[in-house]
Amino acid sequence: MIRKFDDIISKAGSGKLKTLSVAVAQDDAVLEAVKIAKERGIADAILVGDEAQIRKIADSLGMDLEGFRIVDEPDVAAAALKAVELVHNKEADILLKGFLDTKLFLKSVLNKEVGLRAGKMMSHVCVFEIEGIDRLLFLTDVAFNTYPNLEEKAQIIENAVEVAQACGIECPKVAPICAVEVVNPKMQPTVDADELTKMCERGEIKNCQVYGPLSMDLAIDEEAAKHKKVEHPVAGHADILLFPNIDAGNITYKILVRTAKVKNGNVLVGTSAPVILTSRSDDFETKINSIAFAAVISKALTE
Amino acid sequence: MIRKFDDIISKAGSGKLKTLSVAVAQDDAVLEAVKIAKERGIADAILVGDEAQIRKIADSLGMDLEGFRIVDEPDVAAAALKAVELVHNKEADILLKGFLDTKLFLKSVLNKEVGLRAGKMMSHVCVFEIEGIDRLLFLTDVAFNTYPNLEEKAQIIENAVEVAQACGIECPKVAPICAVEVVNPKMQPTVDADELTKMCERGEIKNCQVYGPLSMDLAIDEEAAKHKKVEHPVAGHADILLFPNIDAGNITYKILVRTAKVKNGNVLVGTSAPVILTSRSDDFETKINSIAFAAVISKALTE
Repeated sequence: MIRKFDDIISKAGSGKLKTLSVAVAQDDAVLEAVKIAKERGIADAILVGDEAQIRKIADSLGMDLEGFRIVDEPDVAAAALKAVELVHNKEADILLKGFLDTKLFLKSVLNKEVGLRAGKMMSHVCVFEIEGIDRLLFLTDVAFNTYPNLEEKAQIIENAVEVAQACGIECPKVAPICAVEVVNPKMQPTVDADELTKMCERGEIKNCQVYGPLSMDLAIDEEAAKHKKVEHPVAGHADILLFPNIDAGNITYKILVRTAKVKNGNVLVGTSAPVILTSRSDDFETKINSIAFAAVISKALTE
Repeated sequence: MIRKFDDIISKAGSGKLKTLSVAVAQDDAVLEAVKIAKERGIADAILVGDEAQIRKIADSLGMDLEGFRIVDEPDVAAAALKAVELVHNKEADILLKGFLDTKLFLKSVLNKEVGLRAGKMMSHVCVFEIEGIDRLLFLTDVAFNTYPNLEEKAQIIENAVEVAQACGIECPKVAPICAVEVVNPKMQPTVDADELTKMCERGEIKNCQVYGPLSMDLAIDEEAAKHKKVEHPVAGHADILLFPNIDAGNITYKILVRTAKVKNGNVLVGTSAPVILTSRSDDFETKINSIAFAAVISKALTE
């Protein structure tokens, strides 16, 4: 089982290297991440975009493009679609967003002919190594789905379970996180958490243990769970934290990155291959970590 | 201006000492906090409850009750009401919850004859010193109000502004925190944040600067705000973080306490005197910090 971010990096680099397809690759931060990912043996890449601009940026970065396949497509929309198609056709394993608008990028991902639809809902999963916590935590959804209903929450859990399994956690413990650990009909997240627990008990959510509502401390802190006498295998030991809404998820993500000692990587799943939506506000290591995380997920999908 | 928790402790201990009224004081954790608060010169206390039990617990703690006024009232409901009345009559300055159910405690606080109603909405404010952040942050509401509407959010801001002012911040910067920094009609918190900003511009929310929606990083991190070119005095410099709902607020509170290096204290305001609702899951220092925080607020109310 993977317990540290370094294990994800190692696993990404073991066996046959995975290949990124970079949509609109003329972006300095993205090209630099791709360069380092290749140097560290984390992933290879195909660069799709305006070749002249890609070469210019690579020059300024001191990046040797020897060994990278480049697909010259100066038109942004066409480049995005081409990058998606390379993954669709299995010439590449992971889609990485470059220098284009997120809406246009996602439109290409969902293209009916060459896109990456898998008949499932897409969702965002991030993995965190946090100082003082002895295992990886998978947070979902902090960036893509806004106010999922019960059925959508079940699908978000299923997507995250596949990701956690790719990281070697056979039967992940899932905590639907709420403000309180008791069901309160006036607090919809607690009602949903209770229902998700029952759905898992009835086998409607598979390959995991779901238990909630749990407050954050009762989900991740064994001592807190003991203190409050909440006895359940998930309490204090959650692997996957399901957030009730994007407000709670995104704010938690941002405060963790800003105030705790963490390593993290982020990926979109529910597609036929992992998709990386790096943001310019992510630091450099987060971009590399996201590539490694996606490579580990891709390996699990194909091996 | 107060920038560190130690400054709150010092301010609490300066001048005339404030007095706690402890409702149902026969609780070991609460008595220990009261003992240390007195030893450190943070606050004095009147102990209301079952005197025999109070003396027994004090004995077991090695606590000298000499110098504490004790009001013997073995009945829990009567003791709660008596403790509230002492604050109502200005014999004490701060109400501290002891060994009783939160609902019964709050019922006493809101009692029409001897309670602490101030014609305002009650709300919870916590103050955090966080390693790596150069000022105190006031978080509201992470524990009391669940899903406040726009008007309630305005009142929660006003309550928090009074608290920040008590800590020497004359015109606090208030960020209504959201998942994103753009107004999206499908995300109510962003709509409310925009409206709160306008209410402040129109002078409907006073004595502060409100600006939102802001994501957490853009609210507290100057570099992130610069990077995203969000130019406003509040961006990157928020003192008060208004949470969109209790899910986001409570989860953020719990993750901060668990994963960052923090000192924090919590208080209920909107009443005629500050009320402390310590929870058994708070650690010992948090209880002492909450007493000091309440004392500083009480000083501002009366000086």
